[in-house]
Amino acid sequence: MKAIVNVALKQGVLDDQGKATHHALDTLGFKEVVKDVRIGKQIIIELNSSSKENAKAEVTNMCEKLLANTVIEDYEIEIVG
Amino acid sequence: MKAIVNVALKQGVLDDQGKATHHALDTLGFKEVVKDVRIGKQIIIELNSSSKENAKAEVTNMCEKLLANTVIEDYEIEIVG
Repeated sequence: MKAIVNVALKQGVLDDQGKATHHALDTLGFKEVVKDVRIGKQIIIELNSSSKENAKAEVTNMCEKLLANTVIEDYEIEIVG
Repeated sequence: MKAIVNVALKQGVLDDQGKATHHALDTLGFKEVVKDVRIGKQIIIELNSSSKENAKAEVTNMCEKLLANTVIEDYEIEIVG
């Protein structure tokens, strides 16, 4: 079983990596096209779990303990396969 | 229009961030559950584009020029909204 965890900065938290990428895209000629850029992490975890419910619970636990800084980041978990 | 770009290291390229996270999860008590961890980037771009086809073409161009290092990374583009 596989979990896809997307971790992104909360709205309102300065995303300096996104800002820098936006600026770089502007200078590369995408100024007219790009309105905003935000950058997060995608964590893909291969799991030994008996059910999707167990997998979701385990991965939520991992996010709270390690994968996300819940003060400034939001996370979304998708269990596949 | 919004583009979601997932950039991940190619299979066979050492993912040290993923390895370190895997080790940390092991020490936190998830040793039985976690088989493998890989970490990539998720880039969310707000676009001014007239069509999904244009948006996809522009974002592919951005990936080739800046967002991904195509020597060691693969990217996937999804256009939404």
